[in-house]
Amino acid sequence: MDYAGRLRRLQRQLSDSKLDFLLVTHLPNVRYLSGFTGSSAALLIGPADATLFTDGRYITQAREEVANARIVIGTKAPVTAAAEFLVGRRKKFRAPAVLGIEPESLTSGARDRLAVLTRGKARLRSAPQLVERARMVKDADELRLIRRAIKLGASLFRIICNTIKPGVREVEVAAAMEFEARSKGAEGMSFPTIIAAGARSAVVHGRASAARIPRRGFVVCDFGVILTGYCSDRTRTVHVGQPSREARRLYDTVLEAQLAAIAVVRPGVMAAEVDEAARSVLHKAKLAEYFTHSTGHGVGLEIHEAPRLAVGQEQKLEPGMVVTIEPGAYIPGKGGVRIEDVVVVTPSGCEVLAPADKQLVIL
Amino acid sequence: MDYAGRLRRLQRQLSDSKLDFLLVTHLPNVRYLSGFTGSSAALLIGPADATLFTDGRYITQAREEVANARIVIGTKAPVTAAAEFLVGRRKKFRAPAVLGIEPESLTSGARDRLAVLTRGKARLRSAPQLVERARMVKDADELRLIRRAIKLGASLFRIICNTIKPGVREVEVAAAMEFEARSKGAEGMSFPTIIAAGARSAVVHGRASAARIPRRGFVVCDFGVILTGYCSDRTRTVHVGQPSREARRLYDTVLEAQLAAIAVVRPGVMAAEVDEAARSVLHKAKLAEYFTHSTGHGVGLEIHEAPRLAVGQEQKLEPGMVVTIEPGAYIPGKGGVRIEDVVVVTPSGCEVLAPADKQLVIL
Repeated sequence: MDYAGRLRRLQRQLSDSKLDFLLVTHLPNVRYLSGFTGSSAALLIGPADATLFTDGRYITQAREEVANARIVIGTKAPVTAAAEFLVGRRKKFRAPAVLGIEPESLTSGARDRLAVLTRGKARLRSAPQLVERARMVKDADELRLIRRAIKLGASLFRIICNTIKPGVREVEVAAAMEFEARSKGAEGMSFPTIIAAGARSAVVHGRASAARIPRRGFVVCDFGVILTGYCSDRTRTVHVGQPSREARRLYDTVLEAQLAAIAVVRPGVMAAEVDEAARSVLHKAKLAEYFTHSTGHGVGLEIHEAPRLAVGQEQKLEPGMVVTIEPGAYIPGKGGVRIEDVVVVTPSGCEVLAPADKQLVIL
Repeated sequence: MDYAGRLRRLQRQLSDSKLDFLLVTHLPNVRYLSGFTGSSAALLIGPADATLFTDGRYITQAREEVANARIVIGTKAPVTAAAEFLVGRRKKFRAPAVLGIEPESLTSGARDRLAVLTRGKARLRSAPQLVERARMVKDADELRLIRRAIKLGASLFRIICNTIKPGVREVEVAAAMEFEARSKGAEGMSFPTIIAAGARSAVVHGRASAARIPRRGFVVCDFGVILTGYCSDRTRTVHVGQPSREARRLYDTVLEAQLAAIAVVRPGVMAAEVDEAARSVLHKAKLAEYFTHSTGHGVGLEIHEAPRLAVGQEQKLEPGMVVTIEPGAYIPGKGGVRIEDVVVVTPSGCEVLAPADKQLVIL
């Protein structure tokens, strides 16, 4: 991974953002810039150097993982250690430094403590989302890991087909999938596995429960793994027993919406346009009111990251962005369908990762 | 669960803390006070009422789960919705209200937005940890659920004994345990399962990796489940192959330290005294330098909660507190041992939950 290049590009942005330092506290951002994967860290970035603060549990790991930052092992919270370090260094300067913070990851309490510790030496400023913006466009190393994660995630569909049948508990299906994922080397699941059967398939976030799969109906399966730090995300909806004409129509319309959204993905298109492509198919079929979430989101070190593919989102797509395309329709009391793939934006359009036939599977 | 009683007791504390309202944003605190288990919520508590803010995904769930608060379903972030609601209500008042926030769960960015939205109507104040303090002492309903979670967690030791052998990957052991937990109804694991074999057993937070279990050495297994919202936490260290005299001595000393700590747990004892009881056993055996973490922590809706059993902690134990007792010793390059149980403080001492023989198991 080109941690050095990422850090250098960020350092060039500091002065444009009128910051002397940036204190990175969001752990996926720390990992993105330094390679450090521990669970407790802060990265203080100056114009020409960087310092990673962590604790004694991570002495060996930090040295192994981090090559582009000074490492400080402390006994205090990383933010406190960073503040004390900065104050120590600022003795030779006169004017207070402008210290950018990441307002969405630093707690209000930590900000207060930071302000007290750096009083007179630094003024705190909420920084723009510099790292999140850089992370939107994946580099070649990241794409390689994302492809591997998505391939592993996609392979779990076999378990779905082998385990789903009437009478089986949703949670048993999830357990079998999670076992397979872990056995194949996943660090864990990227979010709680959703197995929502029958009427529960109309619940958008139906975590696998103790409910039994009924004789007939949809089962929405939304699942992802974490492999080498990168998340996969995929949804397949299968049908147990013969589907009614109405159920078939629902499935086929959601699939049409998903394909329509995929078809418009290319550089320069606004995120909202992708959402609209899916939504208009459902609108024509008078199902738009049942599509109660947005069409997609970025995926990478986090399961949900920028950009969002939703109404009003003006972000333009760029080559190297990796996003989900996941329209759905949920009829309360009856059932729902969601179909999701991850695509990478290419110079001329997009590529569906781990593509597969998406005709309705009947179990 | 006595949500109504918990909320009432908290409301009585508001004026002592000089607060007109408290905005609860830490989700385990929201759950503790209202019963709501969704992933997005804020609970605004006034002297005589409470309002829960969540979004459209949770309409049905919020109505089913929450009986002691008004429910507001919004399209904005819960904190924003709460701010707008408060401002709407404050029109009839003259002086700005004092609005307590939870500084360790509200992000700096959310606090800034809250301050802008409530300008002139409310002054923000970092509130003391009122809910965390209440949560330290578990009531009878909670103890019932905690017992069940710990019983399920303890049952996974059977899987450890059945799967650990030389050549098996650590992650396969974890996968088998997690499958068993999920199959028995766990919502998930309470933290990433630690299986650390051979020299890796000296790494305090050795998440199960792709490494293979060697022919000989310790395997530290630290694992927990979440059942009906409550966490379990347990560590067992087993030995593959015949242990050396040195290894036996290490194990027996850590076990002696754990039993010594359990023996001093009773109401009125300071948290630091429990830590000291374990530490002094290791000190006498010249192993204190290898005990690099604290002796324990509270367990409940969260895997780590108050009180902490660590050096300097003056919190006195009270009946109904539930804490881990988990001393360890880790010899770099060689191996480590940790032994952990969860105990509940009783009027006269403590009770070990799911007690079991802790003599060294050789696999």
